[in-house]
Amino acid sequence: MSTTGTLTAIGFDGDDTLWESETQFHLTQARYRELLADDVDPDVLDARLLEVERANLHLYGYGAKSFTLSLIETAIELAGDRLDTADVAEILAAGKDLLAHPVELRPGAREAVEAARDLGLTVLLVTKGDLFHQESKVAGSGLGDLVDSVEVVAEKDVATYRRLLARLGVDPACFAMVGNSLRSDCEPVLALGGGAVFVPHELTWALEHPDDEAAVRATPGLVELAGLADLVPWLRGRGR
Amino acid sequence: MSTTGTLTAIGFDGDDTLWESETQFHLTQARYRELLADDVDPDVLDARLLEVERANLHLYGYGAKSFTLSLIETAIELAGDRLDTADVAEILAAGKDLLAHPVELRPGAREAVEAARDLGLTVLLVTKGDLFHQESKVAGSGLGDLVDSVEVVAEKDVATYRRLLARLGVDPACFAMVGNSLRSDCEPVLALGGGAVFVPHELTWALEHPDDEAAVRATPGLVELAGLADLVPWLRGRGR
Repeated sequence: MSTTGTLTAIGFDGDDTLWESETQFHLTQARYRELLADDVDPDVLDARLLEVERANLHLYGYGAKSFTLSLIETAIELAGDRLDTADVAEILAAGKDLLAHPVELRPGAREAVEAARDLGLTVLLVTKGDLFHQESKVAGSGLGDLVDSVEVVAEKDVATYRRLLARLGVDPACFAMVGNSLRSDCEPVLALGGGAVFVPHELTWALEHPDDEAAVRATPGLVELAGLADLVPWLRGRGR
Repeated sequence: MSTTGTLTAIGFDGDDTLWESETQFHLTQARYRELLADDVDPDVLDARLLEVERANLHLYGYGAKSFTLSLIETAIELAGDRLDTADVAEILAAGKDLLAHPVELRPGAREAVEAARDLGLTVLLVTKGDLFHQESKVAGSGLGDLVDSVEVVAEKDVATYRRLLARLGVDPACFAMVGNSLRSDCEPVLALGGGAVFVPHELTWALEHPDDEAAVRATPGLVELAGLADLVPWLRGRGR
């Protein structure tokens, strides 16, 4: 770790770090490909959907409602008149299923949060996306009461982490962020002089990859762990 | 005011208090009625849309993306096969226009926030709905830098205000909330023993009316002002 101070606070990402998320988006997208299979080549559909999501990001932000709207837009664009309103209704239903899906904690999630808390760290949950859905997921996770603060943010960039840590009175040098996204959880915190614990997920959304992955991976403050179960010994090993 | 303490903090609602919002939703809904006029009776459409929005609230929460999804769902339900995908594309476009619409401050908004600040009050902006869109609106309003804290919340109920004020170390008895919604801005703050400054807007969404409007209006801690311009003398009249 490049952090100069003793670790006093730790942040956990929500989606695909403490609980599953991308898996459900993938399953929804599979259902969507299937629905349109007669009309649109699945690879063309996937590629165009990603472009539409990227183009809509400045207006929609992240999350399942944004995703649903982009699914509909892409289907109309590619399937045109072959798409009927029953298909659109089916996409709406798939989006609702995604929003209503119960929270599934990732292995070791609860233990990792409890261990951080037991070590006397200030524990934050820093999650990005749709406020309403994220608050539902925090509630469903049962982890909300274990952390000192739940922060749902619209974008996880340097400015957001700076503002958030300043408000909580946390020195970035004494903070580490734990998450599956090099772009959202690691890169900005490293840029502030904090530490980052990268816990990869087998599925990570294409828009979560950093512009220069090699540079982020080479930053001294970054450690990579295979899973959250490894976080507890790592925290203890930091000599607290 | 029923507040027992001296006023030390004030909260401003965003949508339809500091800036226009419902007007744009109404214009979007008018465009939608027009689009479907050949297929669906406008009154039936309006009534069913409100029901769909209410039913979707637990899953979608508030905001323009939720509204767009409910517009599509209602159109499919009522127009059925007479709806074609070009109509759905038009609804998507209307939703995007709503999200992209520039912020229009309400009369006296900036002056009211500045006056509260000049009086030494802690000034909060407490706004509900879509996080991404609300943050865009805060940025577009130019008021973000004038307030001590911007709080975008998923629901404005007693639990939310209690948590928010506790976190900021504000005694509810020393707090007043300024807003156009008796349900979201006034009732829960009054229930906590705070004060509420009701500034009605000529358009208020049906789901923002309290269950018992007369009871809220009769609560001693409520004052009603015709506009934000009246807030400045009101604040000074409180003897600070």
